[in-house]
Amino acid sequence: MGPMSTSLACLVRKAQVLYDFTSEPGNNELTVQEGEILTITNQNVGGGWVEARNSRGNVGLVPEDYIEVNHGSTQAAATQHIDAHDQGYNNSSADTKGVNGNEAWTATTWSNNNPADNWNYTEQEPAGNNGSAYSFDEEWDDDSDDGKSTGGYGGSQAGEVGPVWLYPQTQLDCVVADPKKGSKMYGLKSYIEYQVTPNTTNRPVNHRYKHFDWLYERLVEKFACALPIPCLPDKQVTGRFEEEFIKMRMERLQGWMSRMCRHPVISNSEVFQLFLNYRDEKEWKIGKRKAERDETVGVKIFSTIDPELPEIDPTQVEQKYETYSQFSRSMDNSVKELLAVGHLHWKRCTGPLQKEYRQIGKAFQNLSSVFNTSGYPRESTLTEALTATGKTYEEIADIVAGQPKKDLHFLLETNNEYKGLLGCFPDTIGVHKAAIDKVKEADHLVATNKISQQDRHTMEKNLSTMSYALQAEMNHFHSNRIYDYNRLMQFYLEEQVKFYETIAEKLKKALGQYTTM
Amino acid sequence: MGPMSTSLACLVRKAQVLYDFTSEPGNNELTVQEGEILTITNQNVGGGWVEARNSRGNVGLVPEDYIEVNHGSTQAAATQHIDAHDQGYNNSSADTKGVNGNEAWTATTWSNNNPADNWNYTEQEPAGNNGSAYSFDEEWDDDSDDGKSTGGYGGSQAGEVGPVWLYPQTQLDCVVADPKKGSKMYGLKSYIEYQVTPNTTNRPVNHRYKHFDWLYERLVEKFACALPIPCLPDKQVTGRFEEEFIKMRMERLQGWMSRMCRHPVISNSEVFQLFLNYRDEKEWKIGKRKAERDETVGVKIFSTIDPELPEIDPTQVEQKYETYSQFSRSMDNSVKELLAVGHLHWKRCTGPLQKEYRQIGKAFQNLSSVFNTSGYPRESTLTEALTATGKTYEEIADIVAGQPKKDLHFLLETNNEYKGLLGCFPDTIGVHKAAIDKVKEADHLVATNKISQQDRHTMEKNLSTMSYALQAEMNHFHSNRIYDYNRLMQFYLEEQVKFYETIAEKLKKALGQYTTM
Repeated sequence: MGPMSTSLACLVRKAQVLYDFTSEPGNNELTVQEGEILTITNQNVGGGWVEARNSRGNVGLVPEDYIEVNHGSTQAAATQHIDAHDQGYNNSSADTKGVNGNEAWTATTWSNNNPADNWNYTEQEPAGNNGSAYSFDEEWDDDSDDGKSTGGYGGSQAGEVGPVWLYPQTQLDCVVADPKKGSKMYGLKSYIEYQVTPNTTNRPVNHRYKHFDWLYERLVEKFACALPIPCLPDKQVTGRFEEEFIKMRMERLQGWMSRMCRHPVISNSEVFQLFLNYRDEKEWKIGKRKAERDETVGVKIFSTIDPELPEIDPTQVEQKYETYSQFSRSMDNSVKELLAVGHLHWKRCTGPLQKEYRQIGKAFQNLSSVFNTSGYPRESTLTEALTATGKTYEEIADIVAGQPKKDLHFLLETNNEYKGLLGCFPDTIGVHKAAIDKVKEADHLVATNKISQQDRHTMEKNLSTMSYALQAEMNHFHSNRIYDYNRLMQFYLEEQVKFYETIAEKLKKALGQYTTM
Repeated sequence: MGPMSTSLACLVRKAQVLYDFTSEPGNNELTVQEGEILTITNQNVGGGWVEARNSRGNVGLVPEDYIEVNHGSTQAAATQHIDAHDQGYNNSSADTKGVNGNEAWTATTWSNNNPADNWNYTEQEPAGNNGSAYSFDEEWDDDSDDGKSTGGYGGSQAGEVGPVWLYPQTQLDCVVADPKKGSKMYGLKSYIEYQVTPNTTNRPVNHRYKHFDWLYERLVEKFACALPIPCLPDKQVTGRFEEEFIKMRMERLQGWMSRMCRHPVISNSEVFQLFLNYRDEKEWKIGKRKAERDETVGVKIFSTIDPELPEIDPTQVEQKYETYSQFSRSMDNSVKELLAVGHLHWKRCTGPLQKEYRQIGKAFQNLSSVFNTSGYPRESTLTEALTATGKTYEEIADIVAGQPKKDLHFLLETNNEYKGLLGCFPDTIGVHKAAIDKVKEADHLVATNKISQQDRHTMEKNLSTMSYALQAEMNHFHSNRIYDYNRLMQFYLEEQVKFYETIAEKLKKALGQYTTM
């Protein structure tokens, strides 16, 4: 059994679109086409609507009657999920213990003024879950898995992944939409307000960019020691066209919010829930003040992790950290390479290549015009075909110039997001490496009576707990990465295939205009 | 009826290839594929072989049993041809007279020492032809034509084309093949000898480049006043690889020879026939000497044209010349534009574009390698798919780099040939314009008693005859041009379609490697 894959599979509810549906602007609706496969992100929207995500990652509302939900497999996955959890908690051979108790874990070097934190799972929490802020679900696959996943984040080849976060049964998601201009100070200051609608309440809340920025600051303060928090989309960027800029920012805020929603720890945090669910200005202001006063921030966050886990050997921990560092550095390089190549290709397609196809088109059309002046009475079939060919190459120029927006855009955006995310890893891993150094010092400190044996043991235990957190986080990262790149590559290749097929089709049509000889 | 189109249609005998056939090198054989349509260029090769031309213009031998000749349509075309000729000669309403008599036409300003020239049609001359060196076939289409040709050189929309050359029933063609190194002066001087095999005798003769050059000089001397003689492929060009250079030169000599063969006046000339048909060194040497002593060269060539044609008004002639000049200038510009764009595109495909696809391929493969180091056990489906995608883009790089040789090459070669041909037009037209100026002077010369009324009339008649020749030549040029560009564009577009389809197919295959979600 692969509990992680199954517990993730249960998050995914697939549906097939039965009829085309075109969204109304501003209603959070999603345009879908017959035969398309959607991921249901919220089935409890009500009023005959469900919320779904398409293969491009766009989320929106679709009429219930227009889709057919694949109940069978979801049911199976959900059942497996429960089984997996039961197994996880009871199977002593799995070398792991269930997460139990709500005790705070006090580190030697960290004070913990706020042990009984209330970051609990919401009412959607899966059976077997408990009140601990961070919960792990560690399991080992047996080899009976067929090695192929049919859904969920990441592949699911058989194999041991180690500790994973406990994921909620229903995944939180939200739609960022409908940007509106607002103004303050009698119109002297104007701003853009985005509508953010979580799939849990389906009740929109409004936020300006500076609110997102506030949320980001809170998340960094609170979680950055344990979890890499990717940067918000650039503040400085000012598009030449305001509308385009707003659209781009909205798209990126959507991407950022979706990534945060996907994270079981972040999405469940009080500050994040406040951001999505506040009911009125008063609740927002009170919540804001409370979040700003939150003291369980920085390394203290580890104190909220359940300590009842088997200890890990510090040498092993160090090796793992080295692996993570190395991986994030390599991936960072690779992502930057892809971005560089992608930007170059974008420029080539919209610049010289487009120009060249246009020149080819013009050259054929000019030849056609010249042929038309021959005075020879048997030209028209050829000149018409040549003109059509020329126009076809001009159309190809447009297609070539427009293509990057269709496929490279998503490839670059996703890689950009990952570049941001990977940029946070060195700091996060740095915190963990500092803890290792402390444990290494411990022998000396005990010998010189600076700390007790008991302190030293606590430090080792802390390190062990931190290591569980980092492993879970790395597993979260890996499974998301596999899911994202799988989706990205499929989308990119689908668009590329369409691109080349469209051009071939157009040229075939032009070819058909010539006389067969 | 459109005698020109029908008389041309009869030259084309189509065959469909029944089975694949791969040529043996050096045997003048042609590799063909099942379903391909060939033009039979010589059905009387014997020994179970026929000579055929494929859509790329390559000519070679194909086993008789491997093809199915479309007898029905050819027969019909041949019959029409005869009818057309009968009509052309007998229909008085056609405002034209049959070409009869073998009288030489003496121009006022040109002496004619060799009036009874023997450039007659060979035994293949069509019924109704006569012994005059140049014969015209002028006709008007009636409107019952459907305006579409199913074959032959050029389209055949209804319309008046004016004078045309009388084309032989079987078109001369030849195969330039099998380049062999020879040496002279005890190996001190080496040269390449090409085998030239005409479809009339199917007996190969050998020629060095300098022989082709000799032939070119003779043709220019003899015909350039009336007919544009395109330059031979460059003498100076030395390829970096001798083999490649020889292959390229052979291909261009083939193109040049085929164009000369297609011209009814040139192909029927004694010097051209000598070049193709000499039986031994002695015959070649005697023939060479005779051709070098030929005095019917330069403007004297017009004296061999049958004079019994209705006179054309000089003003009309001048207008026509202006149209031809204008057309050849415009086409020259257009061809040069196409060449420039084509060369640029070639460079882009084999240079930066290829490099870019290779970089994209490398970037995907690098990402795959990085992913492989994650230590995460569920990578393999994605990393394998990513590697396959990367390799696909490297293959695309190769395809992009190799494509110009497949399609642009033929486009550039053909346009290059036309550039050369168009470069000869100003001189040829210049000769005709000089004749107009002379006629314009005639009034004054008569008034001052420098020439007689009779002389003046002769000059006008000469101009009229020259004008017939140029019109026939322009019609020859136009119909060949329409045929060539039609064939060229079809070939180019077919290859382009294949190119885009191949890439789409490869990307589809890579796409299939990703997990469906």
